[in-house]
Amino acid sequence: MTEAPSLPKGPAIILVEPQLGENIGMVARAMLNCGLTDLRLVHPRDGWPNPDAVAASADARVVIENTRVYQKTEHAIIGIAHLYATTARPRDMTKRVVTPRQAAAELVAQQAAGATSGLLFGREAKGLKNDDVVLADTVLTVPLNPEFTSLNLAQAVFCIAYEWFQAQDQTPASELNVPKATRPANKRELVGLFEHLEQALDDSGFLQITEKRPNMVRNLRNIWQRAQLTDQEVRTWRGIITALVRYKPPEN
Amino acid sequence: MTEAPSLPKGPAIILVEPQLGENIGMVARAMLNCGLTDLRLVHPRDGWPNPDAVAASADARVVIENTRVYQKTEHAIIGIAHLYATTARPRDMTKRVVTPRQAAAELVAQQAAGATSGLLFGREAKGLKNDDVVLADTVLTVPLNPEFTSLNLAQAVFCIAYEWFQAQDQTPASELNVPKATRPANKRELVGLFEHLEQALDDSGFLQITEKRPNMVRNLRNIWQRAQLTDQEVRTWRGIITALVRYKPPEN
Repeated sequence: MTEAPSLPKGPAIILVEPQLGENIGMVARAMLNCGLTDLRLVHPRDGWPNPDAVAASADARVVIENTRVYQKTEHAIIGIAHLYATTARPRDMTKRVVTPRQAAAELVAQQAAGATSGLLFGREAKGLKNDDVVLADTVLTVPLNPEFTSLNLAQAVFCIAYEWFQAQDQTPASELNVPKATRPANKRELVGLFEHLEQALDDSGFLQITEKRPNMVRNLRNIWQRAQLTDQEVRTWRGIITALVRYKPPEN
Repeated sequence: MTEAPSLPKGPAIILVEPQLGENIGMVARAMLNCGLTDLRLVHPRDGWPNPDAVAASADARVVIENTRVYQKTEHAIIGIAHLYATTARPRDMTKRVVTPRQAAAELVAQQAAGATSGLLFGREAKGLKNDDVVLADTVLTVPLNPEFTSLNLAQAVFCIAYEWFQAQDQTPASELNVPKATRPANKRELVGLFEHLEQALDDSGFLQITEKRPNMVRNLRNIWQRAQLTDQEVRTWRGIITALVRYKPPEN
C-alpha cells in the first residue's frame, strides 16, 4: 500500500452503487487533488478492483489501493459520526440542507473535535435513494444553474473536496509572484527611471507644451507604478531609453 | 442555435490547443452547470465540430453550438478586457497570482462594470505556454494538495465556473427543508407532545426516581427540540405514545 500524504485526515467519500469504473477513477483523482484518501464503495456494479478505475485515476494510487467495498450503505458508514448526503434536487423530506462551503466549514470543525465525517454520493444519473438519504444528518446540495443541474459524479466529489481543502488552505487570495533572482523595485530605482524618461522626453521635445507637462508626467509615472516593476525590469527600461535616445535614423 | 439561459453573461472560457474531444465536452457540461456559455477553442487538435465533445457534453448544446474556434490565442482574446491564465505551477514570471475565489469576486465586479473577461486554460497535461500566460493580466492557480496537483481539464474549468456561480448565488448556507404539505411544529404542539410522553412515563413508572425526574425530563425535551419536528411528526409521535400505552403484551 502507498502511504497516505501528510495532510489532515479528511472525510470519507462513499459512492453508493457507482456504475462506471472510469468515474470511480476520476473520483479518486479529484479526491487526491484535494488531499482526501478515504474512498468507500457500496456495491459497485462492475466489481472491485476495476482496471478502468485505475486507468482514469491519473496515478492516484493511494486512494485506489485503500478503497474499501461494502454490500450495504449501512455497513459503509459504521464509525462515521457526521454524514452528509449529496442530492441535486430537494427531497420530500424534512432535513437540514447546506451548501458545499457550509459543509466544508462543518467538516473542518468536526475533524478538529476528533469526529469522523462522511459524504454520500449516489449512482450516476439517478443519485441517492431516499433510504440512503435518511441515514444522513444533513443534505448537501451544490447551488448550480437551475436549468442544468446534472453534475458529473467526479465533479460533485471534486466540488466538496475542493471546498474542504480551501477551508484549511492558507494561500493568499492575491499576491505578486516575483521570480527568485529578482525583487520589486524600490522607490529610489523607480524615481531614477521616471527622471531618466522625463529628461529624454524634455530633450526630444515630446514634453514641450508647458501647461500639459505636469499632467503627462503624472500619467506616465502612474503607468510605471501600476506595472509593479522589479529591479531588473527598471534596469531593462533604462537601457531601452538609452538605446532609443542614442539611435539616429539613417538620413536619406 | 439554442438560446442561452437567462443568467448574467459570464466570462469566456478559452481552451488553448485542447486534445481530446471528450474533455471539451466535459468542459461544456461543467460550464453550463454553472451558467457559462461562451466557449472558445484555440487550434483544437482534432478539429471542430467534434462528435466526442457532443457525446461527453451531457446535452449542453447551448455551449457546444455556440463554440468559436480560432487559430491563435491572440485572436481568441480580442474584445476581452480582463484575462486570467490558469496555471498549476508558478512560472518564472512577475505577475499577480490569485485564487479561484478571488478571481470570481473580480469577475463579478468586472461584469458589473460592463467589461468582458476571459479565462485561459492550457492543453491537457502540458498546460499553457509562457507566450500565452504573458497575454493575461493575472495568473489563476487553484490551491491543491501539493503532492498531486494535476487537475483534469474539466475539473479546472468547473472549479472557476463554480466559484463564479457561487459569488452571485443567494442560496442560504444552511436551512431546514420542509416539504410543502407540512410546517415546523409550534411550541404549543411541542409542549403537548412533551407532556403526553411525560405523563405516560410517570404512569408507567419510568420516571419513578423523583430526584432524577427533572434532569431526565429536560434531556428528553432537548432531544425533541433538536429533532426540529414538523406538525405532522408531532401527531405521529403522539399516536406512537398512545399505541405503546394501549398495547398489552399477551400473558402466557
